Amino acid sequence: MKKRLVVIGGVAAGPKAAAKARRCDPELEITLYQEEDAISYAGCGLPYYIGGLIEEREELISRTPGQFAQDGIKVKRNCRVEKIDSKEKKVWVRNLESGERFEDYYDWLVLATGAQPIRPKIEGTDLENVFFLRSIFHADVLLQHIKSENIRRVVIVGGGYIGLEMAESLMRLGKEVTIVELAPQILTLFDEDFANILRRYLESKGVQIFTSEGIKALKGKDGWVSHVQTILREIGADAVLMSLGIRPQVELAREAGLRIGETGAIWVNERMETSVEGIYAAGDCVETTHLVTGKRVWIPLGSTANKQGRVVGVNVCGGNATFSGVLGTTIFKVFDYHVAKTGLNMIEAEREGFHPVQAIVRGYDRARYYPGMKESTLKVIADRPTGRILGGQAIGEGPSDKLIDVLAMALHAKMTSYQLAHVDLSYAPPFSPALSPVIVAANVIST
Amino acid sequence: MKKRLVVIGGVAAGPKAAAKARRCDPELEITLYQEEDAISYAGCGLPYYIGGLIEEREELISRTPGQFAQDGIKVKRNCRVEKIDSKEKKVWVRNLESGERFEDYYDWLVLATGAQPIRPKIEGTDLENVFFLRSIFHADVLLQHIKSENIRRVVIVGGGYIGLEMAESLMRLGKEVTIVELAPQILTLFDEDFANILRRYLESKGVQIFTSEGIKALKGKDGWVSHVQTILREIGADAVLMSLGIRPQVELAREAGLRIGETGAIWVNERMETSVEGIYAAGDCVETTHLVTGKRVWIPLGSTANKQGRVVGVNVCGGNATFSGVLGTTIFKVFDYHVAKTGLNMIEAEREGFHPVQAIVRGYDRARYYPGMKESTLKVIADRPTGRILGGQAIGEGPSDKLIDVLAMALHAKMTSYQLAHVDLSYAPPFSPALSPVIVAANVIST
Repeated sequence: MKKRLVVIGGVAAGPKAAAKARRCDPELEITLYQEEDAISYAGCGLPYYIGGLIEEREELISRTPGQFAQDGIKVKRNCRVEKIDSKEKKVWVRNLESGERFEDYYDWLVLATGAQPIRPKIEGTDLENVFFLRSIFHADVLLQHIKSENIRRVVIVGGGYIGLEMAESLMRLGKEVTIVELAPQILTLFDEDFANILRRYLESKGVQIFTSEGIKALKGKDGWVSHVQTILREIGADAVLMSLGIRPQVELAREAGLRIGETGAIWVNERMETSVEGIYAAGDCVETTHLVTGKRVWIPLGSTANKQGRVVGVNVCGGNATFSGVLGTTIFKVFDYHVAKTGLNMIEAEREGFHPVQAIVRGYDRARYYPGMKESTLKVIADRPTGRILGGQAIGEGPSDKLIDVLAMALHAKMTSYQLAHVDLSYAPPFSPALSPVIVAANVIST
Repeated sequence: MKKRLVVIGGVAAGPKAAAKARRCDPELEITLYQEEDAISYAGCGLPYYIGGLIEEREELISRTPGQFAQDGIKVKRNCRVEKIDSKEKKVWVRNLESGERFEDYYDWLVLATGAQPIRPKIEGTDLENVFFLRSIFHADVLLQHIKSENIRRVVIVGGGYIGLEMAESLMRLGKEVTIVELAPQILTLFDEDFANILRRYLESKGVQIFTSEGIKALKGKDGWVSHVQTILREIGADAVLMSLGIRPQVELAREAGLRIGETGAIWVNERMETSVEGIYAAGDCVETTHLVTGKRVWIPLGSTANKQGRVVGVNVCGGNATFSGVLGTTIFKVFDYHVAKTGLNMIEAEREGFHPVQAIVRGYDRARYYPGMKESTLKVIADRPTGRILGGQAIGEGPSDKLIDVLAMALHAKMTSYQLAHVDLSYAPPFSPALSPVIVAANVIST
């Protein structure tokens, strides 16, 4: 009898695992269950779709159900897996359209159940024109309403990077945007100095920002949201985007008796195996290891989901692939600023027992004399006693992505600032100063 | 008595060594001798200056003699050091303007004598409108003549990257450009397949290219060049740019008894010390170690010169800085193509005893659905038995610089393709596909 692979979750890690398994083993029977109508879509592209930069919804779809079918992967959309019996290797599924319930069997099961938006327990989150953004379904709902001229003022609750990307998209649609953040700064993954560079930039673009300001309630009129009540003021709002972050979707895993890690996400080993034999997990629902600290972390990202899905696909076919961990490398674009980070920030480094020192330098994208220069501000952080590079941040119109990728590689290599000061990076006037800004920063640290 | 540092050579490594030594030791007496009138200029910017992209000559000057003077660095321009007595720690200098000869004394001497263009022993290289391009002096001469409307057809002898950069600059000036290369391909540092991608692109831009075609002579009329005689044909030419590469300028070093390495450049250790006590050397006149092969190589580049100059500056002040070597990382831009390489190509890898395998993938700069995508073709090379990454090449309008920098870091870290397939690089739709092209290529190699 043919072996059966069942995949739960159809956005990134799930489809990747299914597709890779198919390539490794053409004989495998593969079924993928997805709660939503859409599958295999680019979740990271949603803010750009809402802002109109990406015009066609179809552009976000990587592979259609038809393409999966051609590969012999059965895709069941609008189907929720409600229970797993890991002893019998059985799942109970409900078709959300027809209400029909049925069972399925697996030899290998992959959980790629993702994450869901945090819903704070405050009054008013069920009012009309209060939106969450996580899935393409949320984006569809938001788009149906947001373009209305009745929506002029939008309050974004939460100053993380999804909130900031959405600020740009909403400005593009002609909205007045206010961001309210509970923490003393937006962008809490970054050091305060760098977060403030971005804050000033966003304010110069017309975004209003309040920090250190908790939300008490969303108030409405006739069932429609009318303002946001913070601890300090009332902010008039024709719509509210709740962007307080996400949490891993682990209910199914927990009920099935899978180990949940200290981060609240599903525990897996390097092979992406859960604590229960025959069950793998990957993507935004799992925790992994931070390669600088060695600790378990939950850092959900599309690129990580893709890599993990691939590892699962190899392993269900008898391979021996591993995923050793992440550095917390992050990047996003807001207006013309490129904002990126890898490794630890100063606060995180201190908390982990390092003795961090930092260098802040100008991150030019070309030689001073070559026309059209763009600049990011670059911070490189190292441990003073050992010289080991711990992380970096870059922000501005310049080559933040390149600078942070070089630093990420330095973190993978466990380089010291002294070693980093001598790396042989590509130089010609249109591409870099003679000494890469990363090297300049490493020099500052190591002298 | 104060200690005296004498630096010979004023373009990149020399000024860097002087400036760094000044910062490390404010008491040091520092004199810099430079044969040319110009000092501390961006040699790599000369093609752009000639093409008119950089409009003002001054933009190429990093530091003026006045700025050096403010730092207490004595700069003597138009002065050639003709002889070194390393026992007496003495140099003999000739002022090229006045003809005056004088002596100077040093405690530490730095040779940064650079490189000079290769002059083939063929007839006609002394004809009018035959140009070499190495120094800002050459650029000045070229610019004085090349803009003339009498110069319509320019033949570039040599298909290396300086020749190719110049092809673009000359096209910008409205010239008809023909490149003649002795080897079977242009761009001999690259594999033939990649060199041919560039060749087709250049031809589509209107550059005529002949390969496998040696030059027999330059022919002239009334003292002016009129055509280039190759082994196969005569090519009409109103001007000829000789771009056959460069060789290290080591005559002074050789006469002083310094060890010349197997590459023909000055031998130095990791501290940039020559074989003679008290004498350092840095920049285009020295050889270094290739970090993939461990062998001595001569790969002159401005970025390397800067790093080496800095190491010298630290060490003459009693520090202990080292420069361990290079990867041969190279990049240049020609029209809208970004052409980059690091490490070994397939031929070089085979010659070094590796068993190279390669993956060629599309090197996109953003997610497929994010508007404005640019693409480079990326090649990653690894050693089959060990998986170790050996090198890479990228060519196209896409992010060649970023891709090659990531690969350069992988080479520094001695990563395998398997490790490289799991690195945590920055991903968001405006900056990269979910899996970096480097990761995609590493995956292709490791499966």
